[in-house]
Amino acid sequence: MSNSSILPVAGARWAACAAGIKKNQSDANLSSVNASKAVLLDLALLELAPSSTISTVFTQNAFCAAPVILARQHIQRIKESNHNASIYCLINAGNANAGTGDAGYAAAKHCCDIFAEQLQCESMQVLPFSTGVIGEPLAVDKFQLASAALVERLSEESWSDAAKAILTTDTVAKAYSRQVEINGRVVTLSGIAKGAGMIKPNMATMLSYVVTDAEIEQADLDVLLSDAVNISFNRITVDGDTSTNDACVLAATAHSGVKVNLAEQSGALFKQAVESLFIDLATAIIRDAEGASKFITLNVMGGKASNECLQVGYTVAESPLVKTAFFASDANWGRILAAIGRAGIDGLVINDVELYLDDYCICQNGGRVHDYNEAHAATIMLQQDITITIKLNRGEYNERLWTSDLSHDYIKINADYRT
Amino acid sequence: MSNSSILPVAGARWAACAAGIKKNQSDANLSSVNASKAVLLDLALLELAPSSTISTVFTQNAFCAAPVILARQHIQRIKESNHNASIYCLINAGNANAGTGDAGYAAAKHCCDIFAEQLQCESMQVLPFSTGVIGEPLAVDKFQLASAALVERLSEESWSDAAKAILTTDTVAKAYSRQVEINGRVVTLSGIAKGAGMIKPNMATMLSYVVTDAEIEQADLDVLLSDAVNISFNRITVDGDTSTNDACVLAATAHSGVKVNLAEQSGALFKQAVESLFIDLATAIIRDAEGASKFITLNVMGGKASNECLQVGYTVAESPLVKTAFFASDANWGRILAAIGRAGIDGLVINDVELYLDDYCICQNGGRVHDYNEAHAATIMLQQDITITIKLNRGEYNERLWTSDLSHDYIKINADYRT
Repeated sequence: MSNSSILPVAGARWAACAAGIKKNQSDANLSSVNASKAVLLDLALLELAPSSTISTVFTQNAFCAAPVILARQHIQRIKESNHNASIYCLINAGNANAGTGDAGYAAAKHCCDIFAEQLQCESMQVLPFSTGVIGEPLAVDKFQLASAALVERLSEESWSDAAKAILTTDTVAKAYSRQVEINGRVVTLSGIAKGAGMIKPNMATMLSYVVTDAEIEQADLDVLLSDAVNISFNRITVDGDTSTNDACVLAATAHSGVKVNLAEQSGALFKQAVESLFIDLATAIIRDAEGASKFITLNVMGGKASNECLQVGYTVAESPLVKTAFFASDANWGRILAAIGRAGIDGLVINDVELYLDDYCICQNGGRVHDYNEAHAATIMLQQDITITIKLNRGEYNERLWTSDLSHDYIKINADYRT
Repeated sequence: MSNSSILPVAGARWAACAAGIKKNQSDANLSSVNASKAVLLDLALLELAPSSTISTVFTQNAFCAAPVILARQHIQRIKESNHNASIYCLINAGNANAGTGDAGYAAAKHCCDIFAEQLQCESMQVLPFSTGVIGEPLAVDKFQLASAALVERLSEESWSDAAKAILTTDTVAKAYSRQVEINGRVVTLSGIAKGAGMIKPNMATMLSYVVTDAEIEQADLDVLLSDAVNISFNRITVDGDTSTNDACVLAATAHSGVKVNLAEQSGALFKQAVESLFIDLATAIIRDAEGASKFITLNVMGGKASNECLQVGYTVAESPLVKTAFFASDANWGRILAAIGRAGIDGLVINDVELYLDDYCICQNGGRVHDYNEAHAATIMLQQDITITIKLNRGEYNERLWTSDLSHDYIKINADYRT
């Protein structure tokens, strides 16, 4: 389901505006912010109705941003106080508020206070999220100036604007919906995500917000988020760089009146829908990866454990030599074998490894197949979507992950990022 | 000491020729090979006098090349047979003979046999080394055609030609010498190395050959090689990709008549010279790294163990975002902190970490220093040689390593490598 058809979710309202936080953007007349100027949108607010349950995961980077620290504390306090009022996610793009020390923490807190006052709620009900440049002070006054207009604009129809407002180096907004029939009644799931570089989420993701109107108990919601993240955002890598600001939110507003229980058959159906939505969002990040010209699915099969499949997968996915070969559409399988060989797998026998481009087996017995057809391999490499399958042939575990190629544009984007 | 003044070493003779192994090179008249056409040189032979001791280390990549497997076997047999005849290193560039399966092993063996016949020695006395494209069959006939001319050309004066013949994507030859006075007599050390991409040696190095005319016992020679490699070739990374063909050879011909004993004070002096020569060769690889415009020394200090210093160092050194920031001369310290934060160091407190550009402290307490001077940082970033010091402030261990930036030319070189 494409961006244009992102479905509203009862019990969830979004607002977005251009607050002047993104770089090279004039602090123009904020009272006349125009939501249609997508390039300027940089501040979003999500309101979750009081009936909602919410589950979150954050970056595991030891150098995590001030808003991540504060959002964790707010969630903790909400849970301890058996809170059942609205919850707000306040998200800005253009400034990560990371590497900003105590002043950054105070700034994040100040932003929550500003919106709490505007919304007439407690500060802990506002969860702050930031993405953008690391190490620049956050301009709190821009949040102050934007707060009234933003709150006023809250609407169930604003998903598309929110999807644009959270972007940084992304070239397209990422928004998907699903509908599932549970016991004869329809529940809706909608989600947005941002991310294009500094992508190797670790137990979390880049920014992503997924909301359903189903009613889901906290324990089930936590399982749904954790399982979905683990096969989607935790299986993608652009450059191996884990962000300081990764966060993923899954919320259930209960407004459809339909209860989802994971122990029931309908719960399994719903879980499938959640996971497929998460995979859509995660792979959309890879398709929009900085400078990417290829979308690569990596299947690592027959490992002795999940971890060794992932070790092989990430070593291949993050090898600059493998990535530049993909950029060049060069079936340079030697670089893939060399990456597998250095992945640190104990007792790996390279002669047992088989390598496939899509369905075409190109390597066996430590070298290319006897009747190797370079022209056929080259045809596959020219595709935009390529599946690499690595059969380790030493166990029963399989993993799948996604990555992109390494191009001139990746260098260009990241060499010019702050200039 | 520069390439031009590489010193001959008594007891070691080199020969080099253009055998037509490098790509896009005509199999021209091999009897008239002209050593001055450096670009065409692709086959080198090193002869070590019968008195020599030799120590070697090879790649730890599980996918290691046929010549690596065979060279290991030959060395094993030489040691078992208490051999005291000449030893030969036969090195070709242009084809790595890796990913070539059983046929590749047979080809390597055939090449050794050819030269053993020409040299009237046993095949095990010839150690094969290859570097270049992975997965292409080795043209044994070219070794056959070149063998007579190559053996005839052996000379103590051919170090420079050998340094050129082993190159692939390198843009300059890497050759250095040292002289040390031991008990009033001079001993000489000369070494050559190649490497510019697929560089993250692991317990070994790219190809490097270092010979001294000192007399050194096997046990001491092994210690010298292992210690020197550990602070030189094992401390460099261009792209994190460990080659399938890495090898490093240290040999002592004994022809100076001067005995070096590590237990004596003169031994320590000699060890220093060896290590400084190895560091010259290793850092020359980084200076010539594919597409590199910057030479970066990374000091990681105050770790709880060597390993955690290296973990931090390599995570920073291999971060595509850090590397592109260096390419852009952008003092983007946030990316460095983000890399440190994801290095997987248990209990790391990012607020304790200090970050220096050369002698200028730019980060403290989780953010940039209070009186941060962007212009000063920018001036340092514009230098070609930059030292980054990361103080973890949690222990007594220090490590130093070297890396390069990530540029458009790296992509260009590696996207075009096989075309």
